[in-house]
Amino acid sequence: MNPSTQREMDPVYSASGLKAVITARIRPDLERIEAEIQQHLDSSVPLIGVVGSHIIRSGGKRLRPLLMILSARMCGYQGRGDAALAVVFEFLHAASLLHDDVVDNAEVRRKQPAANTIWGNPAAVLVGDFLYSKSILMTVGHGNPRILEVLTDTTTKMAEGEVLQLIHADDLELDEAAYLEVIIRKTAVLISAACRIGAIFGGADSSREQALYRYGHHLGIAFQLIDDLLDYTGSATELGKPVGNDLQEGKATLPLIYAMANADEADRVRLRTRFSADRIDEQDFRTVRQIVELRGGLDYTRRQAVHHLTEAKAALSVFPDQPSKETLQMIADYVLHRRV
Amino acid sequence: MNPSTQREMDPVYSASGLKAVITARIRPDLERIEAEIQQHLDSSVPLIGVVGSHIIRSGGKRLRPLLMILSARMCGYQGRGDAALAVVFEFLHAASLLHDDVVDNAEVRRKQPAANTIWGNPAAVLVGDFLYSKSILMTVGHGNPRILEVLTDTTTKMAEGEVLQLIHADDLELDEAAYLEVIIRKTAVLISAACRIGAIFGGADSSREQALYRYGHHLGIAFQLIDDLLDYTGSATELGKPVGNDLQEGKATLPLIYAMANADEADRVRLRTRFSADRIDEQDFRTVRQIVELRGGLDYTRRQAVHHLTEAKAALSVFPDQPSKETLQMIADYVLHRRV
Repeated sequence: MNPSTQREMDPVYSASGLKAVITARIRPDLERIEAEIQQHLDSSVPLIGVVGSHIIRSGGKRLRPLLMILSARMCGYQGRGDAALAVVFEFLHAASLLHDDVVDNAEVRRKQPAANTIWGNPAAVLVGDFLYSKSILMTVGHGNPRILEVLTDTTTKMAEGEVLQLIHADDLELDEAAYLEVIIRKTAVLISAACRIGAIFGGADSSREQALYRYGHHLGIAFQLIDDLLDYTGSATELGKPVGNDLQEGKATLPLIYAMANADEADRVRLRTRFSADRIDEQDFRTVRQIVELRGGLDYTRRQAVHHLTEAKAALSVFPDQPSKETLQMIADYVLHRRV
Repeated sequence: MNPSTQREMDPVYSASGLKAVITARIRPDLERIEAEIQQHLDSSVPLIGVVGSHIIRSGGKRLRPLLMILSARMCGYQGRGDAALAVVFEFLHAASLLHDDVVDNAEVRRKQPAANTIWGNPAAVLVGDFLYSKSILMTVGHGNPRILEVLTDTTTKMAEGEVLQLIHADDLELDEAAYLEVIIRKTAVLISAACRIGAIFGGADSSREQALYRYGHHLGIAFQLIDDLLDYTGSATELGKPVGNDLQEGKATLPLIYAMANADEADRVRLRTRFSADRIDEQDFRTVRQIVELRGGLDYTRRQAVHHLTEAKAALSVFPDQPSKETLQMIADYVLHRRV
């Protein structure tokens, strides 16, 4: 790792201290987001409210709506009309989680049974469809054609990303570029769209819009890299889902991809055997994790995350110093240090 | 049945003659629709093209895009820019079929294996999401805010309708009003939206927009009523899927609902037993069909379809006579006489 990059990423606060500081800063915005979510979860069809609440109230961090609000404020927006648009990003995120859980046959999400395990796949698919449609309808109501264009382009790319990931399921020969393409489409596009749409909403010129888009793009990539790293290094209790989940589901993520590219043939065979097994046990996962660590997969993934977070923060340099900018920088720092 | 209604619905042509006349009239429009579909099925992700083509090229009647085009022409539109918007309705329809098949665990659709049986539920869910997003993106590109509002309101209602239907699965106590609510939301809203959006696209005033909406609304209800009737009376060869499908899937449709309301207790018990069985055989289905017929469920459903088709045609009375109006009337007649 480049020493100057390392220094730049040294947290001023401890991870938990950072979390506390961010939480205090964003509390008023979070409260507005929660109030707005509450208002839109109603439907004349009760099951929609029940399943929708389950996924939306299960402890999401509201990262996407928050980024939209902070981005709008960075561009001079001072009003309170931002929350109504911001929650669209949480609803879209929830819709994609519901469909993801069906696709992955997930059993647990955020320490709770996944919606599909309680209400079945049909309900998860259809309530996902509803949340998705409702999000777009809410955005249409907002009446800004550019925002709609960016948002629907985003959801189309996300769907392509999900299909791409499906195609690459059980594919251990996936290379880093293809992996990056998947995580950009499935994760980074929605996060960068939240930032970009916040900028458009805030009346930004194109250089500021572009800057916030770049912040979101790199933050989104780093967010997914850390997610994929935590699946190897996290604790099941903290994550609210089993570790080794990606390996179990046949998803080759960067820690494993890098290790495969840098292992000797004997280790590669060990990795392949576990990767293609129908079911892996604790011992299998420990073996894989050991090889991944030994071959530098964990360090490399973390370095890549640091790189993208550095880029994310650098993108903000066109903005003058202000509280929202500090919060966005702290969020970038927190992405690296989060345990959940 | 009211004798004048009966007379009004007497076909001028035989069913097959009617089909031939309609086909000849709509051929140029259908060709433009097919060309446009072809152009939009591309994606950088090959699986999307493959699954998308499977569902979109499997012999759909293109009813929805056609209705949009005819409605626009009814309101004076003469250009060729209508097809680009019209295909949105076929894509949305395809997206909903893909998700329906996952929800219903369908094995066959239009004489072919359902997409989920070939590529699995995950691909069907995600390609459905893609087609859905792409449809909205295409509509956004068209740049008419009212059209977008009607369309996204429609897709939200459709999703609610699908969830409603799911809630009512295995519910033989469903009454006619609740059944009507489900078929309006799951089928009629998209058909009426195609007509209404055609009118908006064609620059209609509000009375003509409303008239075409009403045409589509009643046509859509009748279309689904006949669909539900054919599930009792059709032949598997013609339908391209097994008859008795709804009964097997635990869907109480009007023929059965009416029969339940008008049967004696002994017949009700017979119906309930078959309806709640995990698997029904040929003999069970014949028994149910016999009771449904005897108790007037088939006749009543057909009469309701006739009523809605009469309403559909009556809605067109605000328009002067013209070829498109004749075609819309013929389509209404054909809905009643179709075997597939």
